[in-house]
Amino acid sequence: MIRISIDAMGGDHGPSVIIPGIQKVVERRPDARFLLFGREDAVVPVLEKYPRVRAVSEFVHCEVAVRMDDKPSQALRQGRWKSSMWKAIEAVKKGEAEVCVSAGNTGALMAMSKFCLRTMADIERPAIAAIWPTIRGESIVLDVGATIGADAHQLIDFSILGAAMARALFDLDRPTIGLLNVGVEEIKGQEDVREAGRLLREADLRTMDYHGFVEGDDIGKGSVDVVVTEGFAGNIALKSAEGTAKQLAEYLRSAMSRTLFARIGYIFARSAFQRLREKMDVRKINGGVFLGLNGIVVKSHGGTDDEGFSAAVELGYDMARNSLIEKIRADLDLFHSQRSAGERTGTQTASGDI
Amino acid sequence: MIRISIDAMGGDHGPSVIIPGIQKVVERRPDARFLLFGREDAVVPVLEKYPRVRAVSEFVHCEVAVRMDDKPSQALRQGRWKSSMWKAIEAVKKGEAEVCVSAGNTGALMAMSKFCLRTMADIERPAIAAIWPTIRGESIVLDVGATIGADAHQLIDFSILGAAMARALFDLDRPTIGLLNVGVEEIKGQEDVREAGRLLREADLRTMDYHGFVEGDDIGKGSVDVVVTEGFAGNIALKSAEGTAKQLAEYLRSAMSRTLFARIGYIFARSAFQRLREKMDVRKINGGVFLGLNGIVVKSHGGTDDEGFSAAVELGYDMARNSLIEKIRADLDLFHSQRSAGERTGTQTASGDI
Repeated sequence: MIRISIDAMGGDHGPSVIIPGIQKVVERRPDARFLLFGREDAVVPVLEKYPRVRAVSEFVHCEVAVRMDDKPSQALRQGRWKSSMWKAIEAVKKGEAEVCVSAGNTGALMAMSKFCLRTMADIERPAIAAIWPTIRGESIVLDVGATIGADAHQLIDFSILGAAMARALFDLDRPTIGLLNVGVEEIKGQEDVREAGRLLREADLRTMDYHGFVEGDDIGKGSVDVVVTEGFAGNIALKSAEGTAKQLAEYLRSAMSRTLFARIGYIFARSAFQRLREKMDVRKINGGVFLGLNGIVVKSHGGTDDEGFSAAVELGYDMARNSLIEKIRADLDLFHSQRSAGERTGTQTASGDI
Repeated sequence: MIRISIDAMGGDHGPSVIIPGIQKVVERRPDARFLLFGREDAVVPVLEKYPRVRAVSEFVHCEVAVRMDDKPSQALRQGRWKSSMWKAIEAVKKGEAEVCVSAGNTGALMAMSKFCLRTMADIERPAIAAIWPTIRGESIVLDVGATIGADAHQLIDFSILGAAMARALFDLDRPTIGLLNVGVEEIKGQEDVREAGRLLREADLRTMDYHGFVEGDDIGKGSVDVVVTEGFAGNIALKSAEGTAKQLAEYLRSAMSRTLFARIGYIFARSAFQRLREKMDVRKINGGVFLGLNGIVVKSHGGTDDEGFSAAVELGYDMARNSLIEKIRADLDLFHSQRSAGERTGTQTASGDI
């Protein structure tokens, strides 16, 4: 049994999308149980229509709902201790749920998650990890916007977090890790990225296979299982890829409707286009994962539909089912024990055997 | 007449692609004249086959050619004063050419360009500008990899450079400028980006229309004519968009060849696909422009073909024809005179009238 706490008020559409989304999860993950937090007048009427969801859920009334446009500081001030978002996060802290899912606003959710769950020992700052569809399958990219800038040690933290997530989701023993960088010329590259690369290579952890630097176009190629970068570049990469995908879909649509022959061709190839659309369906990869906190929080896209919300919930389910938090804790312990062993024998920077 | 100096040894294929590329330019820009630098045994035999190119070109023998994998420091040490790359850049410095084009390695070309041409007065660091196809047409994005990190004043320099380039290429009086940033939440955003935004808004220059922050997905939408960012994020954005475009082309190819119906559909819609391919043809937007130096240098993609190389040359031609350097100088003067006038009256930060 996996227990999932849900902020039923989050997102642009609230319970009217969230409850039907959970219904889909109930069908596909029969041992999932739900703790639903929200305003009674908003949630209960929808819940009445989904008896299968009601049967596996417990509902908790919360007077306050964080709005999509609340600033993080405002949300914390008004919603701490009592909002549906806070209560859903707190359920993870109290051990009442293994994972929390919200489609609420990202800034507020991150601020509350940090305040409530705190970062793990040995982790300075949390990251948001995204699942990125690639030619070879899927990769994990982090950080896509939790923090601006990251020094070498934070990049190593992100690598450990991302590797653990890849092992929990992709059934890999030793996922490959790449540090996002620019070009290969000597004058290029950030000092912190190079330092992180050097330390990862030396550490040679059994939990990950450090591949080296990757460039922006390696993400879509699936050159590595996990791409690590700081939040500014990661967010720009994610959004610029999304923009390009929309742009090409638009080109394709306009090309296919221009002439009669093209429209006939479209009819013949309709099932191929359907497959393509499924391949490009962002709903299926919905869910940004907050990593580095004492508990898993999944942020669903605010504007998604029930299918998209169910994908975010199932992502949370799968990570909890595969003991992501325990994996991260073990990996951090391994890294830091190797590191301090290296420091004791004075070999951590030169011998490459830590 | 526009005089263009060419590093005929640059790129993966050297003169065998470069001379046919110039041939295409000769057909479309009849008043272009060329100064070709390269090894006689490599260039002259190809030139013999293209009499129309030979008729409008002067050839200068250079013993040394910078290799594609030379490090910038190595290229400078071995190729300064005498390589075809250096000589081509130097022709711009000496006023023998209005613009230099090379398909040689980016790091070496930038190092030599900086060393030979020097940055303009008032410009601290050069930028590489790329032309980005968008749903609405084309935008300029800079910096895509010349320098890592940029403070507020460098971002303003880049805005002035990009705005001048947009006016030279897109026939706009007052191009819109956006600063690339992440999200809109208060905890987010780099200090330097915010400071640059504040200063641009206050300056209210007549040469550009400052639009505000844009996100990664605004680039492909064409939300602004010029997107300004520092080189790390800019390079990641460019490469990640390229990666996504390749990935989707791959999906499309595989979807269209899977079933008989899809293949029949493809045949009907062939001209539509052809249009799509043209729309996505990166050769047509080939050319990174080095801005901020005392002269224009265009970097063509090293692996491009003659069509792609001709696009880079024509980009250089168009910028020279439209007096890019003079526009930049005038714009920098305008900005700095407004600024010092503002400082004299003590109004530069508060009144918004500088």
